[in-house]
Amino acid sequence: MTTSLRCSQPLKAASRSLFAQSRGPLCRSTLRRSSIDRPRAISSYGYTQAKALVYSKYGEPQDVLSIHGHSISPAAGSSVVVRMLVAPINPADVNQIQGVYPSKPEMNTALGTSEAAAVAGNEGVAEVVSTGSGVKTLSKGDWVIMKYTGQGTWRTHMAVDESKLLKIDNKDGLTPLQVGTVSVNPCTAYRMLLDSATWKFMGDEWFIQNGANSGVGRAAIQLGKEWGFKSINVIRGRENKEEEQKLKQDLLDIGATKVITEEELMSREIRDQIKEWTHGGREQIKVGLNCVGGKPATALAKFLSPGATMVTYGAMSKQPLALPASLLIFKDISFTGFWVSKWSDRHPDQKKQTVDDVLRLTREKKFKDIPVQECKWAWETEVDTLKAAVQGTLGGFRPGKGVFVFEET
Amino acid sequence: MTTSLRCSQPLKAASRSLFAQSRGPLCRSTLRRSSIDRPRAISSYGYTQAKALVYSKYGEPQDVLSIHGHSISPAAGSSVVVRMLVAPINPADVNQIQGVYPSKPEMNTALGTSEAAAVAGNEGVAEVVSTGSGVKTLSKGDWVIMKYTGQGTWRTHMAVDESKLLKIDNKDGLTPLQVGTVSVNPCTAYRMLLDSATWKFMGDEWFIQNGANSGVGRAAIQLGKEWGFKSINVIRGRENKEEEQKLKQDLLDIGATKVITEEELMSREIRDQIKEWTHGGREQIKVGLNCVGGKPATALAKFLSPGATMVTYGAMSKQPLALPASLLIFKDISFTGFWVSKWSDRHPDQKKQTVDDVLRLTREKKFKDIPVQECKWAWETEVDTLKAAVQGTLGGFRPGKGVFVFEET
Repeated sequence: MTTSLRCSQPLKAASRSLFAQSRGPLCRSTLRRSSIDRPRAISSYGYTQAKALVYSKYGEPQDVLSIHGHSISPAAGSSVVVRMLVAPINPADVNQIQGVYPSKPEMNTALGTSEAAAVAGNEGVAEVVSTGSGVKTLSKGDWVIMKYTGQGTWRTHMAVDESKLLKIDNKDGLTPLQVGTVSVNPCTAYRMLLDSATWKFMGDEWFIQNGANSGVGRAAIQLGKEWGFKSINVIRGRENKEEEQKLKQDLLDIGATKVITEEELMSREIRDQIKEWTHGGREQIKVGLNCVGGKPATALAKFLSPGATMVTYGAMSKQPLALPASLLIFKDISFTGFWVSKWSDRHPDQKKQTVDDVLRLTREKKFKDIPVQECKWAWETEVDTLKAAVQGTLGGFRPGKGVFVFEET
Repeated sequence: MTTSLRCSQPLKAASRSLFAQSRGPLCRSTLRRSSIDRPRAISSYGYTQAKALVYSKYGEPQDVLSIHGHSISPAAGSSVVVRMLVAPINPADVNQIQGVYPSKPEMNTALGTSEAAAVAGNEGVAEVVSTGSGVKTLSKGDWVIMKYTGQGTWRTHMAVDESKLLKIDNKDGLTPLQVGTVSVNPCTAYRMLLDSATWKFMGDEWFIQNGANSGVGRAAIQLGKEWGFKSINVIRGRENKEEEQKLKQDLLDIGATKVITEEELMSREIRDQIKEWTHGGREQIKVGLNCVGGKPATALAKFLSPGATMVTYGAMSKQPLALPASLLIFKDISFTGFWVSKWSDRHPDQKKQTVDDVLRLTREKKFKDIPVQECKWAWETEVDTLKAAVQGTLGGFRPGKGVFVFEET
């Protein structure tokens, strides 16, 4: 990053959440402005006023996150300054703040924090605000997503080298929400489905998944439908049967072939039922997607056809996967895992292709928005509001994915 | 099979275990001979007297196995008549008799049994006794192994089409025991090691295995040494520490790099120990071989390097494999299984190459015989002796693999 910083102060509470629109070329207090002034993101000297959710030590988001105000110097060389439009709150982001995620962010004082800190958040879409003279691929107004994880997307603005961004070549007909949520869940579903089997694309092959109502689950259903794969989708049963029925219908509406509850999956009758659906097993169930673990995952694995692959990408039950050896030896089922962060860091070109393809499907109305819970992030939004949105993602089973939607300043 | 049968009778007990050396061209009683007569395998009319361990229903070997005497007509067309030299008693053979093995034998009355029956046993080496006029690849005196599983090797003689046999091109310097035990354990070790990773063959890569004292385990150690892979070998601890030390030394002598007990694997200290052995993890542990399951298998999996593969080929603990999702997702460990029967039935050409290579190593004294418990099978051996040898294999942890060694008749 080529950001150079002037004076900056961490803003630790709502009372300090507004920036001064300072004019001094070197040191600006971020606290002098009164709350009725609207901040200007780019000052007359080309400095951008920015805020970021940062943390200096691991812990619960509500305890360790603070908002840090700083100013970003004009874009120079190959760097660009971007304004975030949408940044999702993924469970992995929260785990990263808690320090229980294997991928640790780099903590440093590059943003002028008093302690070494990291900006939270990994996914998001931004708009290019200004470009350095050496920037070749991006122009003002372009939309970009992060090429790598760990770039810190929970902030209003960022200065970043153009090589660390993926340009959205065609944003026509797309909303920032659609583009800002494409990198994690849809890419996870896309690669897991496509890379775990040799498919015939002929409409007589299946996959089976649990957590079918999750962002990844819904993406898998829609991609599967587009590619001609039938799907058995397992959801947690609801006490309210009307709600359960509505959820089933939701998933059928976006392209699920069959939807069953975990209880149904573990029942005796399901074996005959699945046999019937797959025409006596002549139609193979070639891939299983698992984000649950424990007994429901074992139950799911038993319905895979010989030679199939089960891909694990989560463990919502917090139980390990228990695999009878016969599944491995005699049924030749392979068990693998998928970690979208590692995949995208290793294969940025494939990430671009995947993102472009999902966005094409989105544009063609073949890929519907997932349910989200928007948290508006305006200049004056209080840090407690932001932290509450993050903390709320911890449950894992919330009705929609939390996303920060940034208001233009 | 082109065998045509004349009169035959199942021999159900030791008292009926001897054949009559009958002369009649069509119907021969198998019970007229007195026990002092030596049977002649090939009568003057070209008929071969044979005995086979057969079963008509699934159950414990001691309950369902019986010996069946019959005569085999002269080889004709593309068929050959072979005399078994050595046939191992593998745990899978026993499971097959018990009816708990997924690969079921075909039961029929081709050998003239009163009920449809199968000949037990899957592995072994035989010598060609006579060949039909249409046989192109085999001659009298050649040694052959079974190309496929389920051909029934626990019998003195068999008539079989030449297409179902693999000829041992060079038997020089080899014993029947070496050739007769090559198809299952060494092939399992060979393919699991070689096919589960991309190796550098440079002496700084490792595999880790449990059940290291098994036939497969010993084969893996020796092949690994030959190929330049270092190995961490896990054995069950022995109450008698002297015995344990001797066993460790045995495995070190055949090429194990390190040998530890299950208890040591699950201890706290082992982490640092393994780090030291692998030079701080710079030398990767790329493959895990598991025939145990349960907690020891989970413990083993945790020492695999990122991106490694754990192959399961047995479940001696009868416990499922319990896998924390993090091993799958973040460490990118793949869990697969290996079933030698399926592999050999699907890839007979690869089986031939693998067998030839192991036998070359055996001839070059780079592959030592595994410990076996020989059970002589002479013409007059009582059926109870044979059944006891089979039943004894059930334990799984016996000191050596049981093998039938046939005496020439």
